[in-house]
Amino acid sequence: MREGDEGSDRLYHVDGDLVPASEATVSVEDRGFAYGDAAFETMRAYGGAVFRWDAHADRLRDACETLGIDRGLADADLKRRVDETLAANDLADAYVKLSITRGVQPGTLDPKPASDPTVVVIAKPLARGGVGSDPVHDGPAALQTTKTRKPADRAIPAAAKTHNYLNGIVARLELRVTGADEALMLDPDGNVAEGATANLFFADGTALKTPSLDGPILPGVTRSTVIELAESEGIPVEEGTYAPDAVREADEVFLTNTTWEVRPVATVDGIAVDGDGEGVAGPLTTLLSRLFDRRIEETHYDGERL
Amino acid sequence: MREGDEGSDRLYHVDGDLVPASEATVSVEDRGFAYGDAAFETMRAYGGAVFRWDAHADRLRDACETLGIDRGLADADLKRRVDETLAANDLADAYVKLSITRGVQPGTLDPKPASDPTVVVIAKPLARGGVGSDPVHDGPAALQTTKTRKPADRAIPAAAKTHNYLNGIVARLELRVTGADEALMLDPDGNVAEGATANLFFADGTALKTPSLDGPILPGVTRSTVIELAESEGIPVEEGTYAPDAVREADEVFLTNTTWEVRPVATVDGIAVDGDGEGVAGPLTTLLSRLFDRRIEETHYDGERL
Repeated sequence: MREGDEGSDRLYHVDGDLVPASEATVSVEDRGFAYGDAAFETMRAYGGAVFRWDAHADRLRDACETLGIDRGLADADLKRRVDETLAANDLADAYVKLSITRGVQPGTLDPKPASDPTVVVIAKPLARGGVGSDPVHDGPAALQTTKTRKPADRAIPAAAKTHNYLNGIVARLELRVTGADEALMLDPDGNVAEGATANLFFADGTALKTPSLDGPILPGVTRSTVIELAESEGIPVEEGTYAPDAVREADEVFLTNTTWEVRPVATVDGIAVDGDGEGVAGPLTTLLSRLFDRRIEETHYDGERL
Repeated sequence: MREGDEGSDRLYHVDGDLVPASEATVSVEDRGFAYGDAAFETMRAYGGAVFRWDAHADRLRDACETLGIDRGLADADLKRRVDETLAANDLADAYVKLSITRGVQPGTLDPKPASDPTVVVIAKPLARGGVGSDPVHDGPAALQTTKTRKPADRAIPAAAKTHNYLNGIVARLELRVTGADEALMLDPDGNVAEGATANLFFADGTALKTPSLDGPILPGVTRSTVIELAESEGIPVEEGTYAPDAVREADEVFLTNTTWEVRPVATVDGIAVDGDGEGVAGPLTTLLSRLFDRRIEETHYDGERL
């Protein structure tokens, strides 16, 4: 119906066809619209290839299984649609969003056992990644604990990335008061969970720490890459249950997601992480960010800048 | 894009225009699709007029306020769109769904302060209501307690009816195993909350009881009508906190929502409510159902069948 003020000449992949972004629509009776009854992945393409496609495909498959959405499509079919979208827009470095809804089912909330899913791929240009790249975020983040808590896993399956994102939106709305960039969301017991769109890491003198997946936390692809990079450097990594004070008192804090990669945190609830509040990333954050860039450079740009 | 197998000649109201149902779409970058970032109301029109429009409009306004969606539209404008949709489809007795999304905002999860909401009205024919009407449900319900719990209010605002409906969908998926009709969902503390799409009432020898709105419960319009009807008959009504056993051991159990009105419950977790399992509604359920029909007859059909 309407379009954004940018990218009107882009092509999106909707239900098997490449269409102009302005015509990329779904029925108002698509369950993805009516109920947020859909799973999705946000991915980043570097040098023409999606970073860790297999990990995204695995999580998407798991999410569809949790929601009982019979995709009727192989991972390879989905990948083909992603690749077609990148090619059609002549994009090598890009943001890619792939959504699978349960499809058009007018009427009741009860999902029909057989589904005819709607598949949507959106792609937008991003800067080149890898060594020496400019980060795709607004600099070190101000993190603010929100009153909005993560729902319990038995209410909303935490490992499934779905179109039900109001929990994070309501948390972000709270930030308008403080001007912070990202929410520090707690689980139902008051322990640290994650941001609205990012996983959380922090470091003290003993280890790199991150909330365990036993809590209501999205198993982030960048999260697992960062854990792997840290362990490969011999840095001890602890996945556990942490009170908010552990984060407020940490030596370093950073966030991870696909777009931001590794984003340093300057303040937590107004308290400067690095002591002077200038938001200079600490040594461990800097190291992991560089290791991440190197990984991208090696795997996506043939080590061009190494 | 695609349409259901019925109603292709119906007209829906999308963003200010009446369009054929098959062309009633929203952008894939509409936040209603991307995040379920939208509020809605399901209403019933009897004899050409929406039942308790003011109550629905109030709740919708509250939900938009909770979500920080600046509607930029008066209640009267919304009502006009509903009325236009009914008139365009020549519908007097109908199901009506009115959705307001935060609109098309490509990019980040952060909602922009100024929104250009997308307004969608869907209408479909229903049978006449009122005295002697056939119920719009499949008969007495089999209710089944689900493992899926309602999220805490501080995770997902319970009073806001939004396009984030996966909690109810995941609960309904559990029912595929038992073949039950509706989920009996518990709050985070294990007390009775509501169904996936209905409020819950039950009666024992002392009073008509229903979970209090202090819990994570949608303040149903039919729920409040039924409470008012019961009180007008001198029936004691108690809104409280109840364990599931109180429902399993009740003399009568029924569900309420806009479409079903008052729907008797035949079994709770396989246990027959009425003793013989034939699903015959108890005397209080029958009385309240008749009072509801009378109210509709008086207010929407000029008392034609009274």
